[in-house]
Amino acid sequence: MKRVAVLGCTGSIGTRTLDVVRHLGDRVRVVALAGGNNVRLLSEQIEEFQPRLYHALQPESVRAGSAHLATLDEIARDDKVDTVVVATSGNAGLKPTIAALRSGKTVLLASKEVLVMAGALVMEAARDSGALMIPVDSEHNALWQCLRGEDNGIGRLLLTASGGPFYRCSAAQLADITPEEALAHPVWSMGRKISIDSATLMNKGLEVIEAHWLFGVPFESIDVLVHPACIVHSLVEFVDGSVKAQLSRPDMALPIQYALSYPDRVPGLDAPLSWAGKVTLTFEPVDVDRFACLGIAREAGRAGMTYPAVLCGADEAAVELFLQGAIRFTDIAALVGQAIEAHQPQTVSELDQVLAADEWGRRFVMDHWDNSVLPPSSSIHGTNRKPND
Amino acid sequence: MKRVAVLGCTGSIGTRTLDVVRHLGDRVRVVALAGGNNVRLLSEQIEEFQPRLYHALQPESVRAGSAHLATLDEIARDDKVDTVVVATSGNAGLKPTIAALRSGKTVLLASKEVLVMAGALVMEAARDSGALMIPVDSEHNALWQCLRGEDNGIGRLLLTASGGPFYRCSAAQLADITPEEALAHPVWSMGRKISIDSATLMNKGLEVIEAHWLFGVPFESIDVLVHPACIVHSLVEFVDGSVKAQLSRPDMALPIQYALSYPDRVPGLDAPLSWAGKVTLTFEPVDVDRFACLGIAREAGRAGMTYPAVLCGADEAAVELFLQGAIRFTDIAALVGQAIEAHQPQTVSELDQVLAADEWGRRFVMDHWDNSVLPPSSSIHGTNRKPND
Repeated sequence: MKRVAVLGCTGSIGTRTLDVVRHLGDRVRVVALAGGNNVRLLSEQIEEFQPRLYHALQPESVRAGSAHLATLDEIARDDKVDTVVVATSGNAGLKPTIAALRSGKTVLLASKEVLVMAGALVMEAARDSGALMIPVDSEHNALWQCLRGEDNGIGRLLLTASGGPFYRCSAAQLADITPEEALAHPVWSMGRKISIDSATLMNKGLEVIEAHWLFGVPFESIDVLVHPACIVHSLVEFVDGSVKAQLSRPDMALPIQYALSYPDRVPGLDAPLSWAGKVTLTFEPVDVDRFACLGIAREAGRAGMTYPAVLCGADEAAVELFLQGAIRFTDIAALVGQAIEAHQPQTVSELDQVLAADEWGRRFVMDHWDNSVLPPSSSIHGTNRKPND
Repeated sequence: MKRVAVLGCTGSIGTRTLDVVRHLGDRVRVVALAGGNNVRLLSEQIEEFQPRLYHALQPESVRAGSAHLATLDEIARDDKVDTVVVATSGNAGLKPTIAALRSGKTVLLASKEVLVMAGALVMEAARDSGALMIPVDSEHNALWQCLRGEDNGIGRLLLTASGGPFYRCSAAQLADITPEEALAHPVWSMGRKISIDSATLMNKGLEVIEAHWLFGVPFESIDVLVHPACIVHSLVEFVDGSVKAQLSRPDMALPIQYALSYPDRVPGLDAPLSWAGKVTLTFEPVDVDRFACLGIAREAGRAGMTYPAVLCGADEAAVELFLQGAIRFTDIAALVGQAIEAHQPQTVSELDQVLAADEWGRRFVMDHWDNSVLPPSSSIHGTNRKPND
């Protein structure tokens, strides 16, 4: 039986993780739950799973029963925990991930920022303790499945991308996209931040950086293929020319379950893919010109140092501004690109540098967005601009 | 360095194996070559690879240099051999495969008949000695790659089929197909027998039986998908709903190389798949009604005993009659089905029963084809019928 802590239990991945936990029955026991601001949901989860520990941003509003309040770090290091699901948002997962790995615990990683911002430190912590880290992101989980039992000969990683809702839009059309349009992902149902990152393809850029750290593959050997059906979750090309792909319905339950039940495979929550009718799968190279975020992220990843942390902070701020209607869709890439260009990088030797760079990127965007964005178009955004605009 | 014997070295798989051996350089040394009737090619191969042992149907016509003549069984058991490539045709590979496995040698299996006819005996020989058997057929090699590192949880095997050259033909059109049309496979370039078996889908039926033995999966969990591009060579569905697929160009060099270099992966003979343009992959369920051979083979496999050996013998004879213009394309399934129906099965405890059943199937077809075939159509076949027809 695995004794699991779920960090970010009230978010999209966290709640799906608890669905899988219910499905897996005796194989998994939830011993700690860490939620965000949704105290009602967190209280219900605590009542159902009866964890020993919990964490909340407003603990006084939580009905915790007999559970004890703890920090994320305390949960990550707790003796009774052997598996930590990191499904937090933003940079919240960094410290607990490193703490869990240093304690030798298995980490199920669903937070992109952890590896993007602090890949070198995280991988070092895993190497030092020999702890296992299993990626939960559907693409990286797919690659990890394809690499099971393969100990040599990786040639290239091929990450698939849905292309998001606007993949067929012209550059001019992209400028006028509203937050409502961008939140409506054609396949995946996800949180707001990641839905926008999917639409800009920043999400795929972050995944390229994550894949680089997880699998030790150089950036020039990681490519992105647009695959709108979201059935093939990624592919590995080996040096001999053989390619392995992992396929499944686009539902996070599968990668979560695979990570929780590993190395066993047990019957899944949902029906498998159907092959009863004609199935058509298409793949095409990504158009980096229209989706600048992907190229910016790749360059930030390749440059390394504190650049990827700036990328994360700047993107988070820019996405928030877009969701508020303050900037246009295409301004996200412009602002993040400016932040990267203006940044004075440092070699990373500790986590605080990473957190500072993240904050610098966020600050840069907040300080520069109203000077740098393109002139307002005929879209709705004008009415929602900052009061001092 | 692997010391390899190639049985069937002058055939389609055998010559491609030697291409891969040249490519792999010092990793592989050919210590024995066994050819068929093409004495000129065999002589050239012996001159190039300088094996210690050789086998030929007409040894007196072979320029053997310092190589010693040996039987297939002697080669399969030879102390200097550690890997035996079985790429013979018909039932010729049965005895040497079992001899090699009993001697603990790794067998690279490219002959379908071996497992189809004698699956229980062959798997028992491998189990008893702990010898490794690596499938070379592109579909089974794909499944074997997908199952690398997977020690539990197979749900279903999905074998892909090109559908052959006539997959879009109506039942009426199938009756009029000529040998020349049937030999022109749209994707793979193969020997004559297997080209016809591909067109009737008997080949896929034999592969279903082979997969059953290789992977220990029940027949009801082995399905066939028509995939005309021949890029995805097969897929494994696990019990959790995850599917793994193996992709590559349709060239036997890759599975042969994978089997020869296993567990290492080394750069391949040819360029890998290109993802630079749009790639479209389609899959659809197979239409068993129009391609009766697939259903007949599946039933013979499920019934077990001596039925699959009868299937092989009957099919070999029927294909030969079709190639001679004596029967029509659709008569192949009819004759094989009649042989299966007429057969009195035995439980198999030794190889001679298998060989006798194979011979019985062949004999049955030779004795019955001119009574049982459909009336001649307007095709060319009438002029080529047996003299006594």
